[in-house]
Amino acid sequence: MSVVVQKYGGTSVADAARIGNVARRIVATFEQGHSVCAVVSARGDTTDELLALAREITPDPPEREMDMLLSAGERISCALLAMAIHRLGYDAVSYTGSQAGIITDTTHTKARILDIHPDRIESAMREGKIVLVAGFQGVSTAKDVTTLGRGGSDTTAVALAHALGAMVCETYTDVDGVYTANPSLVSRARKLDHVSYDEMLEMAASGAQVLALRSVEYARKFDIPIHVRSSFTEAEGTWVNDGGHGMDIEQQLEQPIIRAISYTTDEAKVTLRGVPDKPGVAARVFNALAAARVNVDTIIQNTSESGHSDISCTVPAEDLPAAELALHDVVEQLGAREYVTDSSIAKISLIGAGMRSHPGVAATMFQTLADLGINLDMIGTSPIKISCVIAKEHVDEAVRTLHTAFDLDEKDVVHEASDRGVC
Amino acid sequence: MSVVVQKYGGTSVADAARIGNVARRIVATFEQGHSVCAVVSARGDTTDELLALAREITPDPPEREMDMLLSAGERISCALLAMAIHRLGYDAVSYTGSQAGIITDTTHTKARILDIHPDRIESAMREGKIVLVAGFQGVSTAKDVTTLGRGGSDTTAVALAHALGAMVCETYTDVDGVYTANPSLVSRARKLDHVSYDEMLEMAASGAQVLALRSVEYARKFDIPIHVRSSFTEAEGTWVNDGGHGMDIEQQLEQPIIRAISYTTDEAKVTLRGVPDKPGVAARVFNALAAARVNVDTIIQNTSESGHSDISCTVPAEDLPAAELALHDVVEQLGAREYVTDSSIAKISLIGAGMRSHPGVAATMFQTLADLGINLDMIGTSPIKISCVIAKEHVDEAVRTLHTAFDLDEKDVVHEASDRGVC
Repeated sequence: MSVVVQKYGGTSVADAARIGNVARRIVATFEQGHSVCAVVSARGDTTDELLALAREITPDPPEREMDMLLSAGERISCALLAMAIHRLGYDAVSYTGSQAGIITDTTHTKARILDIHPDRIESAMREGKIVLVAGFQGVSTAKDVTTLGRGGSDTTAVALAHALGAMVCETYTDVDGVYTANPSLVSRARKLDHVSYDEMLEMAASGAQVLALRSVEYARKFDIPIHVRSSFTEAEGTWVNDGGHGMDIEQQLEQPIIRAISYTTDEAKVTLRGVPDKPGVAARVFNALAAARVNVDTIIQNTSESGHSDISCTVPAEDLPAAELALHDVVEQLGAREYVTDSSIAKISLIGAGMRSHPGVAATMFQTLADLGINLDMIGTSPIKISCVIAKEHVDEAVRTLHTAFDLDEKDVVHEASDRGVC
Repeated sequence: MSVVVQKYGGTSVADAARIGNVARRIVATFEQGHSVCAVVSARGDTTDELLALAREITPDPPEREMDMLLSAGERISCALLAMAIHRLGYDAVSYTGSQAGIITDTTHTKARILDIHPDRIESAMREGKIVLVAGFQGVSTAKDVTTLGRGGSDTTAVALAHALGAMVCETYTDVDGVYTANPSLVSRARKLDHVSYDEMLEMAASGAQVLALRSVEYARKFDIPIHVRSSFTEAEGTWVNDGGHGMDIEQQLEQPIIRAISYTTDEAKVTLRGVPDKPGVAARVFNALAAARVNVDTIIQNTSESGHSDISCTVPAEDLPAAELALHDVVEQLGAREYVTDSSIAKISLIGAGMRSHPGVAATMFQTLADLGINLDMIGTSPIKISCVIAKEHVDEAVRTLHTAFDLDEKDVVHEASDRGVC
């Protein structure tokens, strides 16, 4: 069986006309001789509407009930899509995360997939049925409905692609691929034909919205090619895989230094000041944050002469309350002076495998920002990424200027920026 | 464990304020020392909205997908209600029909409950939790989500009351009990303190909307007292059970002859004309209708002198298309002349256990209608019910006049008819 897994986001199934459009696309793929398993997100604003209903009832909904509530959106979508496919004369069946055999841990609202039992999907495919699966959800080992956290439908799709031995995972969204920068911010952003798993991983971790981080981790780990496409056109999109981007040094020299720029304004900076400079201190700080389930990104420690240091890191804005609770205790335990937070930051990241052999990249980045009069705060690096934290108010100008400075601009055509979704 | 099962209809949970109201009521019952299992319908117009979504996609949605779609409504309600109860400081957990152990057959959209495994609900109750169950749904023996047909939440509630050994099943709606007639039609209708299972069965079968027929069949079979109440007041409602309504002949003589009047405009009349008058003919007609899963109500056969007869029956309006298909084949096979249908009918039923010893009831009914110039069509009887079919346009006047003629009118108070829901 040649299996194709597809994932359709909320915009792609927002109304009856779009659902019909997706149904035709799925059927066309099936007619090419493939078995198709399509993962579906909730329609349009459904998830936000359900969240609003919950907030009307209580500011602090129990997470198990939140999952019961939010999982309804995807069930509605996949049932409607199955109906639309039936209408075209094809046999289709929809499955909840549980029926699809997606088993998760019990961490409600951010569950991790532990295992997938694809038997029911495979039977249906052998019977010639097109299979729809409600994205973003599974069933826990305690037999409760769970949801997988932000971008959960991407994760469902890639995980199923692995379990079903699919040849590709196609993710359909409202942009036609992965761009060199958010096309609705940078009008001269270019669509990339290809990015490697590592580059996509860095981009997702640094703010790119087009694919959820966890799904890219999965794809990289199990070598599942992802094809990011628009649901509104037939055009080839961006391929995410490790082919065509060899480690051959000549090829690397030919690659552009920087492939893309991502940014995020959804992080906050937390700093412990005046931490006694003793072994094990940093470990205690980050153990406390980990215990509070706070994801930590860029970490900086500066030692001053007085035998105390400041430790800073960035966390997702939504984790800030939990981080503050954790740090409050740690400040006391360590005898640190205080902790402070700053929510008005943005983090800009340059990504490129070609960066390795070009030490001037950092210099160019910092000079470009300095020329704009923008202060740099924290700087973080990996072999294929350089990030720095700046004040949120400068992010638009900084991203556009860096995009030009690193020769990423589209040469001939200026895209209509306002029509584009988020990269 | 003293167990109370409650059922809350869609109007009772239509918005956040009403959900809060229901949460308080549930908690009050729990505080009286009972274990509470509350069955919840979909909020307000949710089910109709989901149906409209489906109709946008296709006029003929596959039934399995219809069940996947419609079951979302109750899941959303019970999750929100669990959140509201948590907010009041109590531990609550919501279950889908599947998690509640409700096993059904595979007849999608009108599934019958085969068995209930209440283990999970009972464990939760023993742990001191309040349990919410999504009404109207279960899981089939083929592991698909099923819905139970119109009034399915009533059925869920009574079936659970039996499985849990509950002392009562309280159904909460937007009227404060069962009335002598639809109070929004008959301003002088009176609330009944008590009806027997048999009387309630006839009323539900004859058009009364307040309890679903199948749930009354269940209650009667397993002797489960139902208390029909308003979710908006604390008042005692109507008790449906076999107590206090003894078979003692003196008591019967004291009972009013007629207890209530129901009517329905949701039926259609079908007639096969010129059917050869041979043995087995009627059986073939009704076997054909049964095979098409058409529910049949009043049946009349008139034999004419020519050796042919006309066979008429009433069917729910929604089953008319299926009935016509079935009859089309039967007309050919039997050599009958034709079949005709009439959708402009109404059926009025007088219900009363006291009717048995009062043969004048039928006469009074027919005379009353004749005095109004209303033609009677089909007449059907049971030991505690007399029905007749009339033209739909006359139903309001007929019901009100019969209500007065049989001395059912409230003597002192005139209710504000426009504030009432449907009996």
